Amino acid sequence: MNQKFEPKPPLRIALAGLGTVGAGVIRLIETNALLIARRAGRRLVITAIGARDRAKDRGIDLSAYAWEDDITAMTARADVDIVVELVGGADGPALTLARKAIAGGKGLVTANKAMIAHHGRELAALAEAAGVPLRFEAAVAGGVPVIKGLREGAAANALARVYGILNGTCNFILSAMEETGRDFTDVLAEAQARGFAEADPAFDIEGTDAAHKLAILSAIAFGAAPDFASVETAGISRILAADIAQAAALGYVIRLIAMAECDGAECDGADCDGDVSLFQRVQPHLVPLAHPLAHVKGATNAVVAEGNFSGRLLFQGAGAGDGPTASAVVADLIDIARGLDAGFEADMAFSVPAADLVAMPPAPSGHRTSRAYIRFIVADRPGVLAEITAAMRDAGVSIESLIQKGQSGPDGEAADVLVAMVTHDGPEAAVTHALKLLEGSPSLAAAPLVMHILGE
Amino acid sequence: MNQKFEPKPPLRIALAGLGTVGAGVIRLIETNALLIARRAGRRLVITAIGARDRAKDRGIDLSAYAWEDDITAMTARADVDIVVELVGGADGPALTLARKAIAGGKGLVTANKAMIAHHGRELAALAEAAGVPLRFEAAVAGGVPVIKGLREGAAANALARVYGILNGTCNFILSAMEETGRDFTDVLAEAQARGFAEADPAFDIEGTDAAHKLAILSAIAFGAAPDFASVETAGISRILAADIAQAAALGYVIRLIAMAECDGAECDGADCDGDVSLFQRVQPHLVPLAHPLAHVKGATNAVVAEGNFSGRLLFQGAGAGDGPTASAVVADLIDIARGLDAGFEADMAFSVPAADLVAMPPAPSGHRTSRAYIRFIVADRPGVLAEITAAMRDAGVSIESLIQKGQSGPDGEAADVLVAMVTHDGPEAAVTHALKLLEGSPSLAAAPLVMHILGE
Repeated sequence: MNQKFEPKPPLRIALAGLGTVGAGVIRLIETNALLIARRAGRRLVITAIGARDRAKDRGIDLSAYAWEDDITAMTARADVDIVVELVGGADGPALTLARKAIAGGKGLVTANKAMIAHHGRELAALAEAAGVPLRFEAAVAGGVPVIKGLREGAAANALARVYGILNGTCNFILSAMEETGRDFTDVLAEAQARGFAEADPAFDIEGTDAAHKLAILSAIAFGAAPDFASVETAGISRILAADIAQAAALGYVIRLIAMAECDGAECDGADCDGDVSLFQRVQPHLVPLAHPLAHVKGATNAVVAEGNFSGRLLFQGAGAGDGPTASAVVADLIDIARGLDAGFEADMAFSVPAADLVAMPPAPSGHRTSRAYIRFIVADRPGVLAEITAAMRDAGVSIESLIQKGQSGPDGEAADVLVAMVTHDGPEAAVTHALKLLEGSPSLAAAPLVMHILGE
Repeated sequence: MNQKFEPKPPLRIALAGLGTVGAGVIRLIETNALLIARRAGRRLVITAIGARDRAKDRGIDLSAYAWEDDITAMTARADVDIVVELVGGADGPALTLARKAIAGGKGLVTANKAMIAHHGRELAALAEAAGVPLRFEAAVAGGVPVIKGLREGAAANALARVYGILNGTCNFILSAMEETGRDFTDVLAEAQARGFAEADPAFDIEGTDAAHKLAILSAIAFGAAPDFASVETAGISRILAADIAQAAALGYVIRLIAMAECDGAECDGADCDGDVSLFQRVQPHLVPLAHPLAHVKGATNAVVAEGNFSGRLLFQGAGAGDGPTASAVVADLIDIARGLDAGFEADMAFSVPAADLVAMPPAPSGHRTSRAYIRFIVADRPGVLAEITAAMRDAGVSIESLIQKGQSGPDGEAADVLVAMVTHDGPEAAVTHALKLLEGSPSLAAAPLVMHILGE
């Protein structure tokens, strides 16, 4: 064996948080120990662990590991090189642990999308100053190595646009609605029963989780400071079985798409001299069947990145779950183990140094043009259609197709009517204006639902 | 700006080979110079170039770069850190250049799949001994960072199986046949006219190119020594429009699938103590519509890897072309530029040190079980179907479905008849045996075509 690959001292890991992902990391490091040591050139060894409840049965033997009731005590241990943070939450104990770990000269690996979306720039700057690695592959798209794919694999490209399916719960629900024709509430209950949705599902189904991930991807792709607050976010809870059927009739499926675009020539964060802006939106979209994202089913995640030389790249796989998430966490650990022969080197957490991450102003979405699906629930009385189409005309929205469909009420009497239209490509501001004109109209039984149509 | 990110000296590159990819690399490095410097922490600078014909018009200004008529002279230049080999060919000038570059203490980046498939282990060992990097992301799947995805992104996993669509020319032809109903020869001619197929297409359409790439993926995924010679290879030239139609009727599309499996428990190259074997095959398959590979159209490439923790990962994008290939070449250069603060570090080219790559015996495919599509062209006379089905019965092949379809000859007279069957899951050896029984039968107008069916 080559002299350069003499065994190095093991990489010593402290693990904070022992939920399903934490247990998965332990299981992975134990199961694949030999293989990891060969690939990393050294062993990964868990030295300390900690979580809120020591007594809880996690189905794995933890007796080999030192237990810390106070997880921040890990950051002071001499037998720890890297702290793995799996506590969760944007602030609180996770953030305290992260700051202390870095201050204590430990590297930090985390799956915490909320913390990175809110505090990623600060933590990256701290890590760079301390000369310790900070990695968070597991924070976006579970087991899919998309952060590495963008940060390194696509590093030669100016990226115009990054978008994808970033929330497995929503995709599970939308594909189940599609396959069964059932309603949202019904499918959500099943997803909860099967463990694909939380008891309190708001974080997932209202798009917040996807927005956290999108803010991280934007930072990697465009050199933007993570800016969760500016992500326009809409969820999937208002989507009806009728919307899915209508989309299908038109040749589309509905997917919750998280999309970021950097508006401005050659936007790489370097030339951003004020006329650059960042567009970030999480919104259900109609996706044409010819697009690869239309075929992403169940709890799968997928990310598309469009580079000026690479063209369209697609990364796809399990977006959540203990195994996939552990796979991403340990990939970060292997990267660190491979690179660190003689102490830690500074390692940029994003694509550029933290100090160079640009706070980009959010792009006003009204300037965008797109095709849109707009669905109304209206009272079944004369003149409603005329009212809606007049508003569209007055706002300058050009209608490509329109369908009106009666729905029977529970007792068979005439009830609300569904009107769904697809617009031609046009300014999003015009659609907003049209809906403003209709606001408060007694003809509308519910607020209209707007979903944009993804191009092929 | 953080002190750690003070500009470092540029990474100095010599470029050998100035075909479309070479020209693409120059264009990329010039176009995205600023962005690359920010991401890599230093500039990429081309110092020397060389190719066979200096006078040829390549559409780019080369006057800024030192020209070497003898590309091996690059390896002795003091102003070169990395040699980029884009000459091509498994042996000859490319291999000479690669060996000399490494011997001269230069790093090597190459897009040369044939050379890595044949000599990857030797070159990796040389590079490790010399302490210089060897990278070849562009050798597999063009712009798709799949080598990085497997080597690093999936590094925590034992991979059971790696497979995908690795030849854009074949996929372009198969999807065009599918969309237009036209015959192979016809579509090939169009692909040649549009630049998606070479004037001499054998290398692509007979599966050799995909087999080179597969041998490299196997090495990365399983720690196997690249073993191109053991790849069972079949191409697409015998596929008829009728096969595509038949597959479609059954709910499948036809794709040229390159597949590698490491047979043996927990196969990571470490535990391979003799009872492990490597299965590698390039063959057209029937792919069910529910599988993501069924939706890969045109000259796109896609690779699926199945990890024991990650589950199924998919990497997809442009498999060829100057832009995507240049994107992969420059990604390797950026990786090298990022890691090299103070001289070169040894960097494993595969997932494990070259000395640890295991020469795995090829797995006998007869032991495998699968469902298969078998198509016969038979003479239109009584008893043929009985003869075929008897052979199947005698060999123990269980038929799931069978269709017989007459074809009219050019003058409208009765001509050869197509018989297509799908077998139940069973040993591949049984199918081979059945076809052996039928060998030389005057009832068969052509050799039967066997395509296996990919599971979902």
